[in-house]
Amino acid sequence: MTETSSPFAARTSRDAVEKGTTFAPKFDADGLIPCIAVDADSGAVLMFAHMSVETLAETVRLGEAVYWSRSRAERWHKGATSGSVQKVVEMRTDCDQDVILIRVRVEGSGASCHLGYRSCFFRAVPLGATPTPATELTVVEDGPLFDPDVVYGTKDKS
Amino acid sequence: MTETSSPFAARTSRDAVEKGTTFAPKFDADGLIPCIAVDADSGAVLMFAHMSVETLAETVRLGEAVYWSRSRAERWHKGATSGSVQKVVEMRTDCDQDVILIRVRVEGSGASCHLGYRSCFFRAVPLGATPTPATELTVVEDGPLFDPDVVYGTKDKS
Repeated sequence: MTETSSPFAARTSRDAVEKGTTFAPKFDADGLIPCIAVDADSGAVLMFAHMSVETLAETVRLGEAVYWSRSRAERWHKGATSGSVQKVVEMRTDCDQDVILIRVRVEGSGASCHLGYRSCFFRAVPLGATPTPATELTVVEDGPLFDPDVVYGTKDKS
Repeated sequence: MTETSSPFAARTSRDAVEKGTTFAPKFDADGLIPCIAVDADSGAVLMFAHMSVETLAETVRLGEAVYWSRSRAERWHKGATSGSVQKVVEMRTDCDQDVILIRVRVEGSGASCHLGYRSCFFRAVPLGATPTPATELTVVEDGPLFDPDVVYGTKDKS
């Protein structure tokens, strides 16, 4: 294979990264950058995943969320199996450019969680007391919107 | 020092973690869990940081965001210097319980970014073309709400 140059700018000074307008995302030791996906209309946080250099570039170009699955160690075009493609309405990065935020509209069932919920964050943690191993979560989302066994069958979830 | 037991439940089966109601957060190899903070009212994503076992437990108990600063390698009670304390209205976790989401109301200036912006995600990435090192970000937030040099002076930012 031919070595390809990065589609992203090099990171120079801290000031340039934090206050400038050059897009110079930081990838971690595994070559990944975390990505938060939120619903473009409601603002609800839907999921959290990672992108590689290649899949971040592909997401920018395509306007659909393409992640890197750490568990499967492969490119993960969200919705390829489930139909829950995430159309990217807006992409942002944070002050030190080591996190990506995407505002998306989800196609198909509208569920982004592999369990069929609209959001992966469907359970709340009780506050106000020191947590213990007996601390119980509360389900705070309606759903699921689909049956994962029907949608994925024996396939990996995407 | 006395060894203290974890305030969180052990992670047993994948089904228990994903579908159950036992709070069993996963900490990475560095003992940290990522945390997304959003504005409790507008839903806007404000910042992304990490918590340790101790600071997650403290956040739950106190109802104020306490992070672990990776750059300073120390406990980080958000707002201790700047006054931008994040009061936690709700905490959630995701399907595999390896991410924390907090809905917060920010005291003081209302800014969560150390540069004085309400959100760290104040710049947008242009979509629809393959990114290049010349790709320019666009500032999409008003601000900053405070002057970092005045608020922090020579102190570390918190």
